[in-house]
Amino acid sequence: MVEKRPFDVLNNALNQSVLVKLKGDVEVRGTLASFDVHMNLVIENGEELKNGELKRKLDTVLLRGDTVVYISPVKL
Amino acid sequence: MVEKRPFDVLNNALNQSVLVKLKGDVEVRGTLASFDVHMNLVIENGEELKNGELKRKLDTVLLRGDTVVYISPVKL
Amino acid sequence: MVEKRPFDVLNNALNQSVLVKLKGDVEVRGTLASFDVHMNLVIENGEELKNGELKRKLDTVLLRGDTVVYISPVKL
Amino acid sequence: MVEKRPFDVLNNALNQSVLVKLKGDVEVRGTLASFDVHMNLVIENGEELKNGELKRKLDTVLLRGDTVVYISPVKL
Amino acid sequence: MVEKRPFDVLNNALNQSVLVKLKGDVEVRGTLASFDVHMNLVIENGEELKNGELKRKLDTVLLRGDTVVYISPVKL
Amino acid sequence: MVEKRPFDVLNNALNQSVLVKLKGDVEVRGTLASFDVHMNLVIENGEELKNGELKRKLDTVLLRGDTVVYISPVKL
Amino acid sequence: MVEKRPFDVLNNALNQSVLVKLKGDVEVRGTLASFDVHMNLVIENGEELKNGELKRKLDTVLLRGDTVVYISPVKL
Repeated sequence: MVEKRPFDVLNNALNQSVLVKLKGDVEVRGTLASFDVHMNLVIENGEELKNGELKRKLDTVLLRGDTVVYISPVKL
Repeated sequence: MVEKRPFDVLNNALNQSVLVKLKGDVEVRGTLASFDVHMNLVIENGEELKNGELKRKLDTVLLRGDTVVYISPVKL
Repeated sequence: MVEKRPFDVLNNALNQSVLVKLKGDVEVRGTLASFDVHMNLVIENGEELKNGELKRKLDTVLLRGDTVVYISPVKL
Repeated sequence: MVEKRPFDVLNNALNQSVLVKLKGDVEVRGTLASFDVHMNLVIENGEELKNGELKRKLDTVLLRGDTVVYISPVKL
Repeated sequence: MVEKRPFDVLNNALNQSVLVKLKGDVEVRGTLASFDVHMNLVIENGEELKNGELKRKLDTVLLRGDTVVYISPVKL
Repeated sequence: MVEKRPFDVLNNALNQSVLVKLKGDVEVRGTLASFDVHMNLVIENGEELKNGELKRKLDTVLLRGDTVVYISPVKL
Repeated sequence: MVEKRPFDVLNNALNQSVLVKLKGDVEVRGTLASFDVHMNLVIENGEELKNGELKRKLDTVLLRGDTVVYISPVKL
C-alpha cells in the first residue's frame, strides 16, 4: 500500500478547479496553478465569493497560506 | 503498558468516519484519508456543516492543521 | 523539596476526569487518555459543552493544543 | 544593583495568591503552584471569574501560557 | 516543463498594478515596488480601500506580510 | 552618530512612568520595573484602565509581551 | 539596476513623518525614530488616532511589530 499524504491532494489538483475557503468567510474558486510548502496557492481564472455570491474576478491571485481554511478539488 | 499518544487517534481513525471542528464554527464530517504532523487532514466524502446543517458536499478536502479545534472518530 | 512543573498536572490527571476550556467558549469534559508537549489532548467519554449545556457526545476526541485555554482535573 | 527580570515576578509569587487575566475576558484567581518558560501556569484553589463574578471553582488548573494577558500577585 | 512557484506571481507583478487584500477588510491598490520572503510588500501610488471605496491615498506604503490575505495583479 | 534601536526606549524608561496598550482595549499605566527580549514587561504601582477609566489597582503586574500593542513613556 | 527591498522604505523614512496602521483600527502618526527587523517601530511626536480623530498625544512610543498592518511615509 502506498501511504497517502495531505499534500498529494494539492499535487493531484494542479491545473484543476478548486474551491479555497479562507479565514473571514472569503472563498476563492478557480484553477490551481501552483503551491508551496506553506500552502501559499496561486489560482488562475479566479472568482472571489462572499456568502456564495460572486464578488470579484481575479485573473491570477496568490493566496497566503496562513489564511487558508481548506482546499477542495471541484468536479466539473 | 503501552504509552498512548495523541496522534494514535488519527492513526486509528484512518479510513474511518470523523467529525472535525474548525475555528469559526465550521465543521467537516467524512472519511479521514490522510494526515501529517501539522494536523493537516484530508477528508473524503466530506460534508461541510454550519450550525449543524449541511452547507456543502466536499468530495475531497484538505483541511489546514492550524484551523483545527478537534477531531473525533464517529461511530456508525 | 521536589520542584513542580505545569505538565505534572497532566501526568497526574491521566485516566482521570478533566474539564478543558477551549478558545471560542467551547468546553470538553471527559477522561484524559493522553497528551503531548504541544498540549494536544485526547479525551475519552467526552462531552462538548456550550455555555454549560451538553451539545454533543464525543466518544474519543483529539483536541489541538493551540486551542486550549485551560485544563482542570475534576473531583468526582 | 541586581538586574531584575520579568520572570522574577513569577518566582516571587510561588505559593502566593495571584490574579491571572486571560484572553477573552476570563480571569483566574488562586495560588500559583508552578510555571514554565512558556508562562504555562498552575493555579491551585482557583476561581474562574467572568466580568468580576465567580463563575466556577477550579481546584487545580493548568493555564496555557499563550492565552495569558497578565499575572499579578495579590496582596491579602 | 518549468515548475511554477507561488512567488513567481510576485516577480511577474513587479512594477505592475496589484490589488492586495489584508485581514480586517482593508484593501490596497497600487504598483508593486518590492517584496521579500515574508510577503512584506511595498506599494507605490497606493490607494487604501474600505468596502470598495477610496479611503486614503498612500504614496508609498509598506504592507506587513502577515496581514496579507491575497495579492492579485490587475489588468489595466 | 549613535544608531538608535527600538529597545532603547525600554531601557530609557526603566523606573519611569509608562502607558502600555494591550490587545483587546486594555491599558496599564505604572512604573516600568523590568522587561525582556519578548517584550514581557513588569509594571509596578500599576493601574488597569478600560476605556480610560480606572478598572483596578495592580501593585505589581507581569504583562505578556505578545499582548502588547505599544509602550509609551509618560511625562509627569 | 539596484534591487529594492521592503525595509528600504523604513530606512528612507527615518526622521520623517509616517502614518502607521495597527491591527484593531488604531493608527499612530509621527516621526520614525528607529526600527528593527521585527518591524518594532519607535515614533516620536506621536499622535494616536481612532477613526481619524486624535485620541492621545504620545511623545515617544514603541510600537510592537506584530501589530503593524502598514507603514506609510507622509508628505508634508
